[in-house]
Amino acid sequence: MITRDDILSAARRISPYVRVTPILRVDSQAFGVPGNTYLKIESLQVTGSFKPRGAFNRLLGEPLPEAGVIAASGGNHGIAVAHAARTLGVKAEIYVPSLATPLKRALLDSLGAKTVVAGDTYAEALAASEARAAESGAMQVPAFDHPLTVAGQGTIAMELEQQIEKIDTVLLAVGGGGFAAGIAAYFDSRVKIVSVEPALCPTLANALSVGHPVDVETGGLAADSLGCRRIGDITFEILQQRVSESVLISDQQIRDAQISLWEQFRIVAEPGGAVAFAALASGAYQRKPGESVVVVICGGNADPRTIGANRN
Amino acid sequence: MITRDDILSAARRISPYVRVTPILRVDSQAFGVPGNTYLKIESLQVTGSFKPRGAFNRLLGEPLPEAGVIAASGGNHGIAVAHAARTLGVKAEIYVPSLATPLKRALLDSLGAKTVVAGDTYAEALAASEARAAESGAMQVPAFDHPLTVAGQGTIAMELEQQIEKIDTVLLAVGGGGFAAGIAAYFDSRVKIVSVEPALCPTLANALSVGHPVDVETGGLAADSLGCRRIGDITFEILQQRVSESVLISDQQIRDAQISLWEQFRIVAEPGGAVAFAALASGAYQRKPGESVVVVICGGNADPRTIGANRN
Repeated sequence: MITRDDILSAARRISPYVRVTPILRVDSQAFGVPGNTYLKIESLQVTGSFKPRGAFNRLLGEPLPEAGVIAASGGNHGIAVAHAARTLGVKAEIYVPSLATPLKRALLDSLGAKTVVAGDTYAEALAASEARAAESGAMQVPAFDHPLTVAGQGTIAMELEQQIEKIDTVLLAVGGGGFAAGIAAYFDSRVKIVSVEPALCPTLANALSVGHPVDVETGGLAADSLGCRRIGDITFEILQQRVSESVLISDQQIRDAQISLWEQFRIVAEPGGAVAFAALASGAYQRKPGESVVVVICGGNADPRTIGANRN
Repeated sequence: MITRDDILSAARRISPYVRVTPILRVDSQAFGVPGNTYLKIESLQVTGSFKPRGAFNRLLGEPLPEAGVIAASGGNHGIAVAHAARTLGVKAEIYVPSLATPLKRALLDSLGAKTVVAGDTYAEALAASEARAAESGAMQVPAFDHPLTVAGQGTIAMELEQQIEKIDTVLLAVGGGGFAAGIAAYFDSRVKIVSVEPALCPTLANALSVGHPVDVETGGLAADSLGCRRIGDITFEILQQRVSESVLISDQQIRDAQISLWEQFRIVAEPGGAVAFAALASGAYQRKPGESVVVVICGGNADPRTIGANRN
């Protein structure tokens, strides 16, 4: 299990390389029911998502081999690994499934990583990257199911604790669960953890309902960042204990949340980055009066041209 | 002259209606010379610019007439006045010059204000609004040259002081000077105030060089928010005393700054909102080693579709 100490160690290790991302406190009446709402704008993180926290913690946690690092990723994790590798002066190979967006592939190229398209799904890209790592000796940098990755992502929770006086509830998006598990591991049971997933990517929801990790079909608007076939073993162990409520939302609610984040707050979020906000804004998560809620905006790697378009 | 107490009074008056906008501290090496850099992301303010601070302070500072309020504005000020009027339950008429962007006019319409297009320049719209105010009895809400407006904008400086341990220098954009004068009035002489203007809108720079407000030609990329023919009398009195350095930048530097704010930080800034950042990023402002610099991103009312476009 990941401990609070693991996360504090991660924070010391990665702090020269990542940003303390800001909080925007919004009108206590903004979502119908009174209560403070805090947006953690993690989309302003280096590379545009939370992923460098875990990537740097993995790369700095063990000696780096001559062959460099390797990762499989539909996007943000790969971008983070490529950035961390370049920053630390090692080679990176990123295996991407064909569903990676052109924007994210362009970002990978601009970071100097060697990009290999392998298969149509994350699972296929992962298998190919593991075969390649066995051959080259490169360090595999898992996207979520590794203690150093989880501890790195958990540093967000440490910042939240320093930035906000009273937190009752944290709403966060789940793909493979590294981000959610890191945050959940840091907070004790006084903070309620609410997982939010697209109804079309119910990776954690399905695992919770059967009591163990299980394969799911994924698709829809946020699949490029949250479309994970199976929740991690390490992450599920934590999430099964700590998630109090699991919320599913529609693609239309995600799209509305993206528009609303822009129109009300001038924040650009990618679909996966808007998922937690969608749960609050749509009412899919029902807050109690006076409940102090943190919503993590976990990624901003959208093409801004898709945000300004008309709703219809 | 505006005092620190005027600004503290403004802060008490407007705090239920405006956001404390966040700070992003960026890599101390990010701009070549070491030293902390803090972005004040005022573009996340209600209505997407700093303007509601001054508008609410004016509307709350005196009893509101039955006829409501009236303002002349190329955009952000009008949007702020319309928003403040709707929030406080009074009518608003906004006189806009024809150069107002379609985006900003659409925002005005959505806020329920009566919009009147009057003339091609801010000066013509202002004259028309003043004639109308004399007839209707509405309260004129000046865009910059009013003590309550200046004191309201100055509340940003109070936040900066609370948010950042040590500030050597503040870089800020100047149009009519209300925003800059408010910030300058709050800080004492230990904080260096650097004004930044597009070379095509040198309203303050020209006034400083001749020693009094003077008419200038304005144009270029940021004219819809910074294109002010003549600096205010109240604002100039403060700025003449407190601006240590006046920097002019090109439209290309503004455009590069918009792209860079997006690519490096996932912040959408309108051209006027990117002007202060452009001075730092382009090297037009030369920081000293170890100098702690605040850059205010003062507006985000760009069409995001213009941000994602290719550089070339």
